[in-house]
Amino acid sequence: MSTTPIAIVAGVGPGTGASVARKFAATYPVVLLARSPENFESLAEEINKNGGKAIGISTDISDEKSVKAAFDKIKQEFKDAPIAAAIFNASGRFVRKPLLEISVDDFGAGWHVGVKGAFIFSQAVLPGLLKHAEDSNAKHQPTLIFTGATASIKANAQMSSFASAKFALRALSTSIAKEFAPKGIHVAHAIIDGVIDIPRTKDWLKDMPPEAKIGADDIAQSYWDLHLQSKRCFTNEIDIRPMLEKW
Amino acid sequence: MSTTPIAIVAGVGPGTGASVARKFAATYPVVLLARSPENFESLAEEINKNGGKAIGISTDISDEKSVKAAFDKIKQEFKDAPIAAAIFNASGRFVRKPLLEISVDDFGAGWHVGVKGAFIFSQAVLPGLLKHAEDSNAKHQPTLIFTGATASIKANAQMSSFASAKFALRALSTSIAKEFAPKGIHVAHAIIDGVIDIPRTKDWLKDMPPEAKIGADDIAQSYWDLHLQSKRCFTNEIDIRPMLEKW
Amino acid sequence: MSTTPIAIVAGVGPGTGASVARKFAATYPVVLLARSPENFESLAEEINKNGGKAIGISTDISDEKSVKAAFDKIKQEFKDAPIAAAIFNASGRFVRKPLLEISVDDFGAGWHVGVKGAFIFSQAVLPGLLKHAEDSNAKHQPTLIFTGATASIKANAQMSSFASAKFALRALSTSIAKEFAPKGIHVAHAIIDGVIDIPRTKDWLKDMPPEAKIGADDIAQSYWDLHLQSKRCFTNEIDIRPMLEKW
Amino acid sequence: MSTTPIAIVAGVGPGTGASVARKFAATYPVVLLARSPENFESLAEEINKNGGKAIGISTDISDEKSVKAAFDKIKQEFKDAPIAAAIFNASGRFVRKPLLEISVDDFGAGWHVGVKGAFIFSQAVLPGLLKHAEDSNAKHQPTLIFTGATASIKANAQMSSFASAKFALRALSTSIAKEFAPKGIHVAHAIIDGVIDIPRTKDWLKDMPPEAKIGADDIAQSYWDLHLQSKRCFTNEIDIRPMLEKW
Repeated sequence: MSTTPIAIVAGVGPGTGASVARKFAATYPVVLLARSPENFESLAEEINKNGGKAIGISTDISDEKSVKAAFDKIKQEFKDAPIAAAIFNASGRFVRKPLLEISVDDFGAGWHVGVKGAFIFSQAVLPGLLKHAEDSNAKHQPTLIFTGATASIKANAQMSSFASAKFALRALSTSIAKEFAPKGIHVAHAIIDGVIDIPRTKDWLKDMPPEAKIGADDIAQSYWDLHLQSKRCFTNEIDIRPMLEKW
Repeated sequence: MSTTPIAIVAGVGPGTGASVARKFAATYPVVLLARSPENFESLAEEINKNGGKAIGISTDISDEKSVKAAFDKIKQEFKDAPIAAAIFNASGRFVRKPLLEISVDDFGAGWHVGVKGAFIFSQAVLPGLLKHAEDSNAKHQPTLIFTGATASIKANAQMSSFASAKFALRALSTSIAKEFAPKGIHVAHAIIDGVIDIPRTKDWLKDMPPEAKIGADDIAQSYWDLHLQSKRCFTNEIDIRPMLEKW
Repeated sequence: MSTTPIAIVAGVGPGTGASVARKFAATYPVVLLARSPENFESLAEEINKNGGKAIGISTDISDEKSVKAAFDKIKQEFKDAPIAAAIFNASGRFVRKPLLEISVDDFGAGWHVGVKGAFIFSQAVLPGLLKHAEDSNAKHQPTLIFTGATASIKANAQMSSFASAKFALRALSTSIAKEFAPKGIHVAHAIIDGVIDIPRTKDWLKDMPPEAKIGADDIAQSYWDLHLQSKRCFTNEIDIRPMLEKW
Repeated sequence: MSTTPIAIVAGVGPGTGASVARKFAATYPVVLLARSPENFESLAEEINKNGGKAIGISTDISDEKSVKAAFDKIKQEFKDAPIAAAIFNASGRFVRKPLLEISVDDFGAGWHVGVKGAFIFSQAVLPGLLKHAEDSNAKHQPTLIFTGATASIKANAQMSSFASAKFALRALSTSIAKEFAPKGIHVAHAIIDGVIDIPRTKDWLKDMPPEAKIGADDIAQSYWDLHLQSKRCFTNEIDIRPMLEKW
């Protein structure tokens, strides 16, 4: 008897992460990872109330021990459930400053969370994804998705911390995709090129119509579409923009 | 009263084009454009028999007059129906030869069909796509999709004709995307990186499992997913590979 | 006895082409190809007066017959001289317009000169370049350089004609580079990203200091540097910008 | 009176770094930074014996304090000399392993040296480069060059540590280039795509002719050419391959 597969979202907040979690929760029990419980508590409650199943675990994704502890809890809760989908949606703190004013710590912040964290997360979820890949009853290919940004392909002035981390994440995603595709794991990288419409950005682009921003639920739908692709059709990279984006 | 919107597929053959046409025919009346009637006759019949509506028109997509004649027929048949989706799936004949052995005509073949043809097709469908964008009852954003290939981003030795055409097509797609996105038209380019499983390739990769090739129906599903994206989430480029592709 | 090798510049005008021709004329007899004699006459005179050797030939680079006639004249003049360097610096007429206002002819203009012309030129010079590659007394590797632009990697709105041609040229350059590098020919593509300081642009960026524009002589120097690279160090692509360029 | 400008090379070893140091030492006093003195001692001696001036400083480029100490020594030796050129040529240890077998430390090694180190180095040299940019007697634009690799643009399986670091370095280079070009600093990134012919690789590609490898002295020449470019012609990226490279 095969166990119900689960989905894991790292970097849940009031924006994309929450939308992605809700979307995947319609099909799978979901695990919500975020540093601060306030980022997942009400969301987990909402999902559980609506007939889904969600647990949140306070996790520092850049810290191997913290991630190990989180996956121990996941194991307690879901036994050795295969992982149908894992979404990495975390970034470090954002520093936009003249290069000579950035501290080494600030420069590294993007990498520690957004790249090292992505590596630690990948190592933690890949065994469960491989397990799902070997399950002949699995309905969809196990999917590992990384959230990128404009800065994944464009390194502007004063953006060295964020851009170098996002370039690095893109390389990590591709390298994992090439290694694990032959084993049935679908790895995808999404270049989110525009402002996402979330509480934090509600005052941005205020004079513009709604289609000047990216809908977080729409990103979630696109991630879900990626998850549904067959093993004869893996998309490894998509870009996403709102209709009114200049690029 | 708004007219039923239609979908138009250029470059219908026994492969991707047919799959795409079937997929979109489940929702829209479809127009099938191909040079030779044998490429669309049985497909149109099949769609019409299954409750859809399809007409095929013999068209040389690289010839402005031929395309104009085709769109006159479309107008006769569908009046001024808005266009919900237009898919350009044509390529010129494929020349793989040492550079010094390629004739100027052969070198140009890729461009004439695959780039000039794409330009002529775009000019023909854009007014109908704009009409759909202005229709407040439209369920989905009007979508214009171009089919690319590995050669869209990689120019190998002996591939100058095909690669230069596919690079050019990618530029054309991006330029149209940037001009028409603010008007609500979703333009996307698909990098099909692998062998598509169609009658012509049935003897290729024979010793490999099915997931060494791309499923034509799976491409069609991904194109349909693009069409369903909201105006707050346009993907302008996807890549597509089979699970076992080396890249 | 080995014949003196020559250099050939296609697309000589009052800008980059002239600077490149002067630079290479310090070492090699140069052939200047341009549609209109006024583009090379005074330059050829200047070079010949200064102790170099130059001939100009009126050539439509997009026309196979015209190019053949030009190379017949080159043969008359220089016998079977090997070609040390060939620079392709031509573009078609530039159309910047809304897509729906571009004629098919205008759309194709960029390709006919800038891509088909580059192909015809490449076929014409490659035998002479190969000859130079086989000459054990050759001081430098035979070099074929293509002049690209911002639009070689960026396809903006209303730029479909130019960008699709420049993307295509880049693919052609790479494909030739891969095929002919093992035979000793150094093929390079230059992305000229900025306004070149030539008579035609003298009123552009008027309020800016000189380093807001690219120096045509500086481009010529960089092309010459490419030519001097050893067979253990081929650069296949460079970008070039003025100090004050925003990118 | 303006002080003689200096050049600084980080990541001096028996390969590219040494060649670059020798090249720049023909014009500038050079500072050689490497972790282990054995990497610079004989080279410094050689340069000093041949009429140049070189000092070596044992430095851990990934450690802010170590770099600060090194620049204190540079100040002692060269007062407030402007910096004409700074070359970053360091990489972390190279891990090529299945993803699940890489330790977090090993994964980070590439970043700590190759990206954080590049950031620390850039902050240390930029004030001196700016000083040179302001010197009206300066013969050449101050130049900051980063050495990349195939992995700067290609992330293969099992290469996640190296590729993510090299992608990140490329982003860092571009971001600095955009910020500091308007101030007259020329920043360039070199994609070294092939095996460099150095003692460590002498048994690689043994059955191939010399032009299957990249010459370290040839790289140094290309770096020098970059340094000589005028402010009206900055190349921000070059690729470098040996004639026989497959790519």
